[in-house]
Amino acid sequence: MGLRIGIVGATGAVGQEALQLLELGALSIAEIRLFASVRSAGRVRSFRRETVRIEEISAERLAGLDYVFFSAGASISRQYAPAAVKGGAIVIDNSSAFRMAREIPLVVPEVNAKELGRHPGIIANPNCTAAILATAVWPLHQAAIVERIVVATYQAASGAGAKALAELDAQVRQYAAGEEIRRKVFPEQIAFNVFSHNTPVDDSGFNEEENKVAQEIRKIFGEPTLGVCATCIRVPVFRAHSEAVVLETRRKLSAEEAREILSHAPGVAVVDDRKANRFPTPLEAAGKREVLVGRLREDPSHPRALALFVSGDQLLKGAAWNAVQILELLAAG
Amino acid sequence: MGLRIGIVGATGAVGQEALQLLELGALSIAEIRLFASVRSAGRVRSFRRETVRIEEISAERLAGLDYVFFSAGASISRQYAPAAVKGGAIVIDNSSAFRMAREIPLVVPEVNAKELGRHPGIIANPNCTAAILATAVWPLHQAAIVERIVVATYQAASGAGAKALAELDAQVRQYAAGEEIRRKVFPEQIAFNVFSHNTPVDDSGFNEEENKVAQEIRKIFGEPTLGVCATCIRVPVFRAHSEAVVLETRRKLSAEEAREILSHAPGVAVVDDRKANRFPTPLEAAGKREVLVGRLREDPSHPRALALFVSGDQLLKGAAWNAVQILELLAAG
Repeated sequence: MGLRIGIVGATGAVGQEALQLLELGALSIAEIRLFASVRSAGRVRSFRRETVRIEEISAERLAGLDYVFFSAGASISRQYAPAAVKGGAIVIDNSSAFRMAREIPLVVPEVNAKELGRHPGIIANPNCTAAILATAVWPLHQAAIVERIVVATYQAASGAGAKALAELDAQVRQYAAGEEIRRKVFPEQIAFNVFSHNTPVDDSGFNEEENKVAQEIRKIFGEPTLGVCATCIRVPVFRAHSEAVVLETRRKLSAEEAREILSHAPGVAVVDDRKANRFPTPLEAAGKREVLVGRLREDPSHPRALALFVSGDQLLKGAAWNAVQILELLAAG
Repeated sequence: MGLRIGIVGATGAVGQEALQLLELGALSIAEIRLFASVRSAGRVRSFRRETVRIEEISAERLAGLDYVFFSAGASISRQYAPAAVKGGAIVIDNSSAFRMAREIPLVVPEVNAKELGRHPGIIANPNCTAAILATAVWPLHQAAIVERIVVATYQAASGAGAKALAELDAQVRQYAAGEEIRRKVFPEQIAFNVFSHNTPVDDSGFNEEENKVAQEIRKIFGEPTLGVCATCIRVPVFRAHSEAVVLETRRKLSAEEAREILSHAPGVAVVDDRKANRFPTPLEAAGKREVLVGRLREDPSHPRALALFVSGDQLLKGAAWNAVQILELLAAG
C-alpha cells in the first residue's frame, strides 16, 4: 500500500529536485504522477525503474492522489490546489499563493513541525530565503530570543527559475566569446554584476522578496512582532543563496555558545574555521540538504548582537527538500 | 611652474588609474615619474604627449619631488615613504601602512579635508570599502548623527589586485570551455561563488578587511566610539564594490529626507528609482568618480534606522580618485 503522489510543475527546477528526492527517499510510493503545462505534456521521466509520462494539468486529473506538490507559480496553485484537495489530496504548495493565509500552516519542519497537526488540506512551503534563514536562526532564537534580524542576501540566479539560470550561463559565454552581453530575463546584467532583487518595490521602498522574508519568518517563528530588515540582492551564482545576518537577542549569546548550539541543531552544518578562513559558500552548499552556518562573531556595535553568514541550497532546503520533509512527516502520521 | 609628481606602483591597477586621472586633470605638471619593481622598470607609459620610462624604485630616485603617490603595498610604503618625505615630497599613501598612525591624517576630502592642514609629510588614503562607505554615510551623519553602522559588502575581484581580476576572467573562460576551474590567487573559486574576504581572521572572528572598515570609518569621521559591524564578502564582479548598509541615527531620518540630503551631497549620485527597479549596481558604478546610493528606506525593525545600498568604483573613489582629490586640494593650498 504505497502513496499516490503528484508533482505539479514537474519540469521546473524545484519539481525535478522533488522527484529526485522522492526517488532517493524511503517512502513507499505506489504511483507518481507528473503534471506540467501543455508544452511539456507527453514527455517522459523515469522514476524507480518506471517510465512516467508528463500530463497536462487539469482539475480532474488531480483527483485520487494522497499528496500533491505544487511548484508552478502562485496562479497555478490558486487555480488547481483547491481541486486537488477536493479530490482527496493534501497539497504541499511551494508558491506564495497561500503562505500568509491565516488558516494555512507555513512550515519549516526543524522549526514548527507541530503546525502540521492542523491544516485545511493545504500546507505552504516558505520562500527560499526565508526557509534557509529560519533553519539557521531558530536554534538561536530558542536559546536567547531573537528580537531583530538584519539580513543582506546574496541570491543565486536559479532562484528566478531555469531561464534566469540559463541567462547567467549565456552571458558568461558571450563574455568569453567577446560578444555583446544580452539581457532578456533579468532587467540588469547578471554576469559580473549584483543588483537589487527583481521584484516590485512598494511605497516603503522594500521589494516583494524582502517583505516575504520578513512576513514569513514572523509566521514560521510564531513571533508577529519580530523585527526584520532585509536587503535582497542577486549575485552571479548558479545555485544556493547566502545571507549575511546580524541578530539582536534578548539574552546575550557568545559566539562560542552559538557555535555549540548550532553544532547540535537539526538541518544545520557549522562551517566556521577561522584559521583556515573556511566559511560557508554557495558552491559548497549547492546540492546539500543542510544549511551551512559560520562567521559566528559577537557584534561589537551592540551589547547583545551576533553576526553570522549562512549558505543554503535554495532548491533543496529552500524548496524541494523542505517540501519532501513535510510530506515525510505527514506520511509518518 | 608645474608640479613634480611621482607614482610608486605605477604598473598596478590603482597606479594606472592615478596616472590617467592626472593626465585628464587640470593640474599643471612639470614632471611625472613612475616607479615600480625591477620587473617593470624600463617599460614606458605615455603622459600628456610625453613618454615616461618606468624606474626601479629607490630612496635616491624619490628625492626632489613635490608629491608622491604610493600604491605598492604596505611594506613598500613603510620602506620608501619616509625617504620621499625626507627628499622634499608630500606622500599620499594608498596602503594600510600609516592609516591608523595617530599623527597621520586619513582623508576622504568630502568628509575631513580640513585634516590636510596639518600633517607630518604623509597623508593616508583609506581602504576602498571604507572610503566608499564614508562618502555615502557622512552627509547623513551630519544631518542626524549616525550611532551604528551594520554593513554587508559585495566586493569586486579587482579589490585584490590585477592577478585576482585575471583569475575571475580565467575561471569564467575555463567554465565556458568546459574545462576544470582552477584556483591560484583566491583560496575559494571566485567565478559563480561568493566567499568571506580573504584576509586573516582575528580572535573576535572579524577579518582584517572588516576591522579596517570599522577603524577607518571611526578615524575619518572623528568618532572614536561609532559602532560598526561589517561583513566583507567577495563576489564575482570585475570592478566596483557594493555595500548593503543599515544606519542607526540619533535623530530619525525619513527616506525622503535622506534622499534630499544625498541628492546635494558632494561625491554622491542618487540612483533610487523604485518604479523602474533601478538602483546602484557595480556595473553602473564602474568608471565613475561618484559613489552611487539608493534603496533608501526606513528600517521597520528599529525606531531610528535607515537602510541603503551603495556601489562605488573601488579603484577610483576607493583609491586613485580619492588620492588625486587630496593632491589637488594640497596643491591648491
